[in-house]
Amino acid sequence: MLDSMRLFPSDPAARAVAAKLYETVRDLPIVSPHGHTDPSWFAVDGAFPNPAALFIQPDHYIFRMLYSQGVSLESLGIPQLDGKQQADPREVWRIFAKHYYLFRGTPTRLWLDYSLSTLFGLTERLTPENADHYYEVVAAALETPEFRPRALFEKFNIEVLATTDSPLDTLEHHKAIRESGWKGRVVPTFRPDPVIDAEFAGFRENIDKLGEITGENIGSFKGYLNALRNRRAFFKQMGATATDHGHLTAQTADLDDAAAEALYQRILSGSSTPEEQKLFQAQMLTEMAGMSVEDGLTMQLHPGSIRNHNKKLYEKFGRDKGADIPGPTEYVRSLKPLLDRYGNDPRLTFILFTLDESTFSRELAPLAGHYPALRLGPPWWFHDSPEGMMRFREQATETAGFYNTVGFNDDTRAFLSIPSRHDVARRIDCAFLGRLVAEHRLDEDEAFEVAKDLTVNLVKKAYKL
Amino acid sequence: MLDSMRLFPSDPAARAVAAKLYETVRDLPIVSPHGHTDPSWFAVDGAFPNPAALFIQPDHYIFRMLYSQGVSLESLGIPQLDGKQQADPREVWRIFAKHYYLFRGTPTRLWLDYSLSTLFGLTERLTPENADHYYEVVAAALETPEFRPRALFEKFNIEVLATTDSPLDTLEHHKAIRESGWKGRVVPTFRPDPVIDAEFAGFRENIDKLGEITGENIGSFKGYLNALRNRRAFFKQMGATATDHGHLTAQTADLDDAAAEALYQRILSGSSTPEEQKLFQAQMLTEMAGMSVEDGLTMQLHPGSIRNHNKKLYEKFGRDKGADIPGPTEYVRSLKPLLDRYGNDPRLTFILFTLDESTFSRELAPLAGHYPALRLGPPWWFHDSPEGMMRFREQATETAGFYNTVGFNDDTRAFLSIPSRHDVARRIDCAFLGRLVAEHRLDEDEAFEVAKDLTVNLVKKAYKL
Amino acid sequence: MLDSMRLFPSDPAARAVAAKLYETVRDLPIVSPHGHTDPSWFAVDGAFPNPAALFIQPDHYIFRMLYSQGVSLESLGIPQLDGKQQADPREVWRIFAKHYYLFRGTPTRLWLDYSLSTLFGLTERLTPENADHYYEVVAAALETPEFRPRALFEKFNIEVLATTDSPLDTLEHHKAIRESGWKGRVVPTFRPDPVIDAEFAGFRENIDKLGEITGENIGSFKGYLNALRNRRAFFKQMGATATDHGHLTAQTADLDDAAAEALYQRILSGSSTPEEQKLFQAQMLTEMAGMSVEDGLTMQLHPGSIRNHNKKLYEKFGRDKGADIPGPTEYVRSLKPLLDRYGNDPRLTFILFTLDESTFSRELAPLAGHYPALRLGPPWWFHDSPEGMMRFREQATETAGFYNTVGFNDDTRAFLSIPSRHDVARRIDCAFLGRLVAEHRLDEDEAFEVAKDLTVNLVKKAYKL
Repeated sequence: MLDSMRLFPSDPAARAVAAKLYETVRDLPIVSPHGHTDPSWFAVDGAFPNPAALFIQPDHYIFRMLYSQGVSLESLGIPQLDGKQQADPREVWRIFAKHYYLFRGTPTRLWLDYSLSTLFGLTERLTPENADHYYEVVAAALETPEFRPRALFEKFNIEVLATTDSPLDTLEHHKAIRESGWKGRVVPTFRPDPVIDAEFAGFRENIDKLGEITGENIGSFKGYLNALRNRRAFFKQMGATATDHGHLTAQTADLDDAAAEALYQRILSGSSTPEEQKLFQAQMLTEMAGMSVEDGLTMQLHPGSIRNHNKKLYEKFGRDKGADIPGPTEYVRSLKPLLDRYGNDPRLTFILFTLDESTFSRELAPLAGHYPALRLGPPWWFHDSPEGMMRFREQATETAGFYNTVGFNDDTRAFLSIPSRHDVARRIDCAFLGRLVAEHRLDEDEAFEVAKDLTVNLVKKAYKL
Repeated sequence: MLDSMRLFPSDPAARAVAAKLYETVRDLPIVSPHGHTDPSWFAVDGAFPNPAALFIQPDHYIFRMLYSQGVSLESLGIPQLDGKQQADPREVWRIFAKHYYLFRGTPTRLWLDYSLSTLFGLTERLTPENADHYYEVVAAALETPEFRPRALFEKFNIEVLATTDSPLDTLEHHKAIRESGWKGRVVPTFRPDPVIDAEFAGFRENIDKLGEITGENIGSFKGYLNALRNRRAFFKQMGATATDHGHLTAQTADLDDAAAEALYQRILSGSSTPEEQKLFQAQMLTEMAGMSVEDGLTMQLHPGSIRNHNKKLYEKFGRDKGADIPGPTEYVRSLKPLLDRYGNDPRLTFILFTLDESTFSRELAPLAGHYPALRLGPPWWFHDSPEGMMRFREQATETAGFYNTVGFNDDTRAFLSIPSRHDVARRIDCAFLGRLVAEHRLDEDEAFEVAKDLTVNLVKKAYKL
Repeated sequence: MLDSMRLFPSDPAARAVAAKLYETVRDLPIVSPHGHTDPSWFAVDGAFPNPAALFIQPDHYIFRMLYSQGVSLESLGIPQLDGKQQADPREVWRIFAKHYYLFRGTPTRLWLDYSLSTLFGLTERLTPENADHYYEVVAAALETPEFRPRALFEKFNIEVLATTDSPLDTLEHHKAIRESGWKGRVVPTFRPDPVIDAEFAGFRENIDKLGEITGENIGSFKGYLNALRNRRAFFKQMGATATDHGHLTAQTADLDDAAAEALYQRILSGSSTPEEQKLFQAQMLTEMAGMSVEDGLTMQLHPGSIRNHNKKLYEKFGRDKGADIPGPTEYVRSLKPLLDRYGNDPRLTFILFTLDESTFSRELAPLAGHYPALRLGPPWWFHDSPEGMMRFREQATETAGFYNTVGFNDDTRAFLSIPSRHDVARRIDCAFLGRLVAEHRLDEDEAFEVAKDLTVNLVKKAYKL
């Protein structure tokens, strides 16, 4: 099922170089600086419940494709807001197998084939006919010690894995991991959206809780900022090296103290307008950049996702159910206030992501190829795919070079897909480099260096790992 | 002139697979679910007048390129609004031959070479030197029975051909075809722009005529909707399986009954503002989706063309004379009102087209890869070309898969180009699949299935043919 | 260091064709119709001062990349507004060599390697170890007669070189060149931004100076237009064949006389709003097109660069220091007023450039593939690169053809990079053509013609050289 030459150019000259390069990075440890795995897995180290709960129900790449072709989320056992989740996991698996052909040509298919093959020895294509057998093999394996989260973490050769966490999180699982004596490095990431985005569910309560936890007076903007500073320090103490920000746009602002305080009071009042809420988010990006200058946490911005687009699904199933759709995103004017203030500061590392590929050559590479504080994050989400990664390299490299990029993010909730995602990224980078060498645009000895830099060195530097 | 390996990757490994795949789809019947051929051709079955009238005068791909390099439309015999059309067809053909080099690297060149070669046995490149000979060969052929519309329809192996028709059309030609005993399947498509777009020439008269034809009271919105329902039923009875909508944007709306009625009255009054006219079009897309849920007609949206951009040409020659230029098009927020209402409804098939390729990976594939009602139409118009088709597959497949796409549309007024356009589409799909197989991203046996699905199965399913 | 097959496809079939095509264009003379070299070089014909002043300090491609990775502009000896510029050139060269790896995969690297190798015989990669040796070789060469500007001009086989000049320029250097008896053809280009863009430094003084130079009454719009007409005539007399316009957007306007006069008075008053200033620039594009119809100067538009984005750098170092960032650019509606007036006029040649690649297939190719007055400029600035050039051909050719494009612009301030830039362009065009031939989309004999047209014929025709 898995050809050793997969994802390399089919042209023999470029392929040969790609394959040689890949040999030198294939077995390097995985550095995963941004993702959405659950820290409790590694704290508790219990068995994963069943194949459907492991592969299908947490993976919106999978169920959104099935849903698009008429498979109901109920039949897939996706948890509902009212607590219902009734599907039999084996039946869910059968539905998946029946529709496996839908994933032809998608990265999901590559990830799944890799996981089934390398982890479970299941080397034939998943079909309705072998679905039950596959289910049983996976289910049996999941009950063995080799398939506990920590054992897999080690088997995957993960050097460090970052989770993404609420600023109100006690990080108890991270604490438990650290105190357990287990050597695996799992670190939190500070994602303050719940106390910055006034449209976030429970926003006002979140702010109050922020005050309680930190003992700061959140009644003033200064106190609110101190509370955030306090939480950042706590996260940093618990191993965090980065923050992450999910905003609708890349808008930033740089208000004076009085205007910022007045705006904060409007936000707190609960009667702020959508424009005020956007301006507050914009101002907070600049505040967060300032705090990163202070405490050294690397800053990530993930803008441009129009969340919960499907009203009916959102009302029944809640967030993150495959109905987030990208929109056009503007960076150049949006980021100017923040960059005017901190863009030249060597103490800041600010990593930009996008769902709007038209910005790579037009806006992002020119920005990152100029401002010392800026770096380009890897292709995100819908673009975390062979074609998407290749377009990123083709569109960003000539202006930003390789050294203003930061390696790969797997960005996943699907733990078992981590090795396969990194493998795809390594192969595509080697494929790109192989073509450059074959076209005499890069010397081969340099390509070996770049391949290693893209795999481990750039990510460690950007995320201070 | 036509190499059997044309349009396949030059890499031997990918080419070999592409060629094998193509062998299995080359001779499949043509299913043409959207286009602009004239139903009277098949009703009357008369001879086409001459080579210029057949190849040049109806084909805006051709005369726009000639015009861009200083050839006047008058000299090409393009019909003028005042009824003039004076050019000698043989002279038009000579001008065309003289400028044939302008089409190097364009799909027009591929289509022309294919038609001249396969239909007329003219296998050398068209040049000023052989122009007269070519004209005579084509002209002579057109007088033979083998070149009558019905004979060509059969020779082209067309299984079904859809035309695009005004909602006020009597469909007399379609009726004549059906009653003629001829077996060719030519079906109408319901395109209601003339009674929905208040800027359409004769809009108010069109509405009145709609009332007359249907006996409905078009003085109220309810009556107007019933009149449309009535016409849709008539079209369906005459073989239609789809509607089509050409709008400036993808904007939709979902007004309550009172607001919709009030808006309709403003539109009827003749003194509506451009904003009201846009809102009415937006509302009508949602109404049309609702009717499609009722009557099962597949719905197509072709947005984003800024029509009649060249004022002087438009004033002299009228619509569709090559001066339509694409603009940026937004889908995610625009379609939300319609999708909130019908996006999850399995009875709706809503096919989206675009002239803005930046939306494929950013908006359209994520939307179609989620909503059960949505499908992606093939590359349209300027993008109906080898590079455009390849970009579509490269940018849409990883998120939407193959199975949220609907096969090929030839979308043409140029009847003789139909086989060549389908041939290009089949070759490019096989080229894309060949690369996936050669890069071990798709199993070869699956590629054979996909090739067939892209050629006939998906189009039949989406258009219910 | 320089493989003879560089930049050609690695596939042997496409490469073989590309190489054959390239053989026929490699040694054709360089026609450089748009760039930013300094005419005083050729008037004075003095030695270039040192390697840093030649290669690094004038080249914002180079110092922006170094700056993005933390190298200060001060350390690179970039001239400051207060007149300071202290770095030792040899030290600057060492810094450059130390960071040469940053340019891997960028066009800068290709240009540098080519120049060092072909001009100075330095065929190993620049490294910190050989930096001093390289510096000495280059410095020594610069003192020889062979490396004087005129000798290099001849060695580079430049047939004609256009500079870009202020409308207030006396063109004394151009005069000196013409009167020197030297045969090299260096021509000015009329770039009136300093008297059209009200935000330009010294705008009001520039207008006054325009009046003084020409003796026209700049107090009225008519007098102002006459002054511009006067300067255009002077430029034309001094050899100019083109104008150039650097605007934030592609907006055009076509006001009536009274409105234009009133707007001009507002602009002159010094209290105009930003909207009025934009409208004035828009109006002036249409005025300039009208003058081009009169005097035959080819018109170029370079829109979409957001200038001086980095506030701190701009305040210390001034314009053109690598902090210009592209933004999204709209053409279709923006150009309509100008095109309504002059788009069908065969006397106008209006060349459009872009920094927004998403417009190539969506807007620019459809516009240029229709309007007789329009042509597409080559990929500009950040997109003047192997991938950028290839995307341009792939995205523009199918709609606009080859013959609505105008060959290559090197657009550079870096004189020594001119041969390398033209070489890259020729290679990429041959690579594209090689693929078309290998995929049987273009006959080989035609490809030879197109290669020559793209290299010299189209540029000479478009720029009337």
